[in-house]
Amino acid sequence: MRYGVLLAIALVATLASGGTAAAQERHLDGPLILSQEGSFFVGGDTQTVAPDSDITVNQMYVQYQIPASIDARPKPAVVLIHGCCLSAKSWEETPDGRMGWSEYFVRRGFPTYLIDQVTRARSGFDPTVFQQVRSGVAPPDSLPNILVIGHQAAWTSFRFGPTYGTAYPDEQFPVDYADEFYKQMIPDLNLMLGPYSGPNPTFDHLATLANQTGGAVLIGHSESGFFPENAALIDPQHIRGMVTIEPGGSCTTANPLTVPLTPDQIVKLAKIPTLIVYGDHLSGGFLKSYADCHDTYVPQILAAGGDITFVSLPDMGITGNSHMMMLDKNNLDIADLIMRWIDSHT
Amino acid sequence: MRYGVLLAIALVATLASGGTAAAQERHLDGPLILSQEGSFFVGGDTQTVAPDSDITVNQMYVQYQIPASIDARPKPAVVLIHGCCLSAKSWEETPDGRMGWSEYFVRRGFPTYLIDQVTRARSGFDPTVFQQVRSGVAPPDSLPNILVIGHQAAWTSFRFGPTYGTAYPDEQFPVDYADEFYKQMIPDLNLMLGPYSGPNPTFDHLATLANQTGGAVLIGHSESGFFPENAALIDPQHIRGMVTIEPGGSCTTANPLTVPLTPDQIVKLAKIPTLIVYGDHLSGGFLKSYADCHDTYVPQILAAGGDITFVSLPDMGITGNSHMMMLDKNNLDIADLIMRWIDSHT
Repeated sequence: MRYGVLLAIALVATLASGGTAAAQERHLDGPLILSQEGSFFVGGDTQTVAPDSDITVNQMYVQYQIPASIDARPKPAVVLIHGCCLSAKSWEETPDGRMGWSEYFVRRGFPTYLIDQVTRARSGFDPTVFQQVRSGVAPPDSLPNILVIGHQAAWTSFRFGPTYGTAYPDEQFPVDYADEFYKQMIPDLNLMLGPYSGPNPTFDHLATLANQTGGAVLIGHSESGFFPENAALIDPQHIRGMVTIEPGGSCTTANPLTVPLTPDQIVKLAKIPTLIVYGDHLSGGFLKSYADCHDTYVPQILAAGGDITFVSLPDMGITGNSHMMMLDKNNLDIADLIMRWIDSHT
Repeated sequence: MRYGVLLAIALVATLASGGTAAAQERHLDGPLILSQEGSFFVGGDTQTVAPDSDITVNQMYVQYQIPASIDARPKPAVVLIHGCCLSAKSWEETPDGRMGWSEYFVRRGFPTYLIDQVTRARSGFDPTVFQQVRSGVAPPDSLPNILVIGHQAAWTSFRFGPTYGTAYPDEQFPVDYADEFYKQMIPDLNLMLGPYSGPNPTFDHLATLANQTGGAVLIGHSESGFFPENAALIDPQHIRGMVTIEPGGSCTTANPLTVPLTPDQIVKLAKIPTLIVYGDHLSGGFLKSYADCHDTYVPQILAAGGDITFVSLPDMGITGNSHMMMLDKNNLDIADLIMRWIDSHT
């Protein structure tokens, strides 16, 4: 098992050597040329909240850009899925004003879809329980536990540095702009969606979106790190690849989050090429998640004949990457690595 | 006074005659070519919610696209400000898949900025009071009154038709896609911001954003219809024009919402060119808002020497427009009218 993983690392190391490509080769220069852009929703349920008053809940907002073709070989669509206490903003311009992954994927020829998770940002949330508690119809403890990450916790758990205000010597996150980053951390209502008791509607919507795009690579991060796999367990048909970046939970449980993956689920997941990526300075929950994915999930998928690549960036000599690697100073190098994996594995 | 208003109507009627321009002239054909795109935040306050735990609140998310120049004469930036229970999604692709105003303004050469109001969508909201109520530290009635519009109320108050499910014969809203529209209606937490007791932070952020863009035309709609004016009362210096589309509140009170505009405020507002636009089939609150703007505010601004244009679309022969005119079937015609006003008045 260990051999398979190491082989995969070596392969990606070779693929990543083009990270020094000139700006021109990366299509960073010149205008951004789109054949199409827009936004729409996937899913949504009608809920009656009062006589003659219905609202829509559980819809997922999607924003997309389709590049004018730059490559003879068409690229698959990519769907970028943000993490806890964040929105699709995470994939856009970085806190220090550099290009984010959303624009870079488009510039490199990928039809690119950003989503706001159900209950977050432009997807909205179901206000019913809040109104019921306010009016005394429901008890206060029926309010959801709103997930929030404070500045101090983000600094250490997202590995900007060992203690709040101090950066790691080789830190890649633009720590001078941490205050700008904190502005994209917003309340997370995912615990309204019953993740411990049943599937989050975002999973189903991601499978539907993959279908609507004509086949997509799903890229999840942190809270959503294992969302591509959860979508594939519902409908794998249009998911051409799964990229799991530092899953905040685990690689060994799906939804409900407390139930281990079954052998049948492993067989299903092994049919889709998978890339797992971890950055540097891992600690706490992410160290546990790393071990879980590396030592248990990867061998399970390999044993089922799957194509799975496990990348530890520091093991490849790429050091100092934070949990928010899509915003790090070398963010485009990491994107290059993912794009090369997509080109050769999907 | 009435003469001044009629003159203004006649002027815009002439300007609107180009609404039949070919798709090519409108730059609808061919790729969308951007010199730059990205997103950032304006404002934001640090709030300590627990020992060693700070969060950022009151920040405003901004998403922008700068077109590659298509015109010898550079266009001013435009800032599109969504209304109640909506997000910046309102300005994007329509529910039936046509081009929205955000892309159209870019295609016509305007640097275009979309915002999510403070407490909405990607701007996030302050979760503190929700957590306090849940844990029993604060009483249930300290929760904010969350504004929500149901499908039935939206249908009639946004004037898709006289009764739910029935459209006006000349209706411009794409009513067959109303279910898709409802998905962009999300909970509105603006009443957390004390609109009856003090200024909404979005006003200040809009004035700051106008400065950051090097001068901008602010375009408000419905709840935000009078936001351009409220921003100008804080700092008019970089606001090159104000477009007020069917203000949901009033043209005669600023923030706090219960206090009438003072003569000094009228003088300040009269220094910035203003366009007010109303659609068809007005009823209820919008009929009152129309009368308030037309009969009181316009004469006040004219008396102070201001350049103000009041447009009633049906009076110009453009019939059937709903409150959501940026999504109506003739949405680009309405945008053309606004662009011509910008070209000749700012």
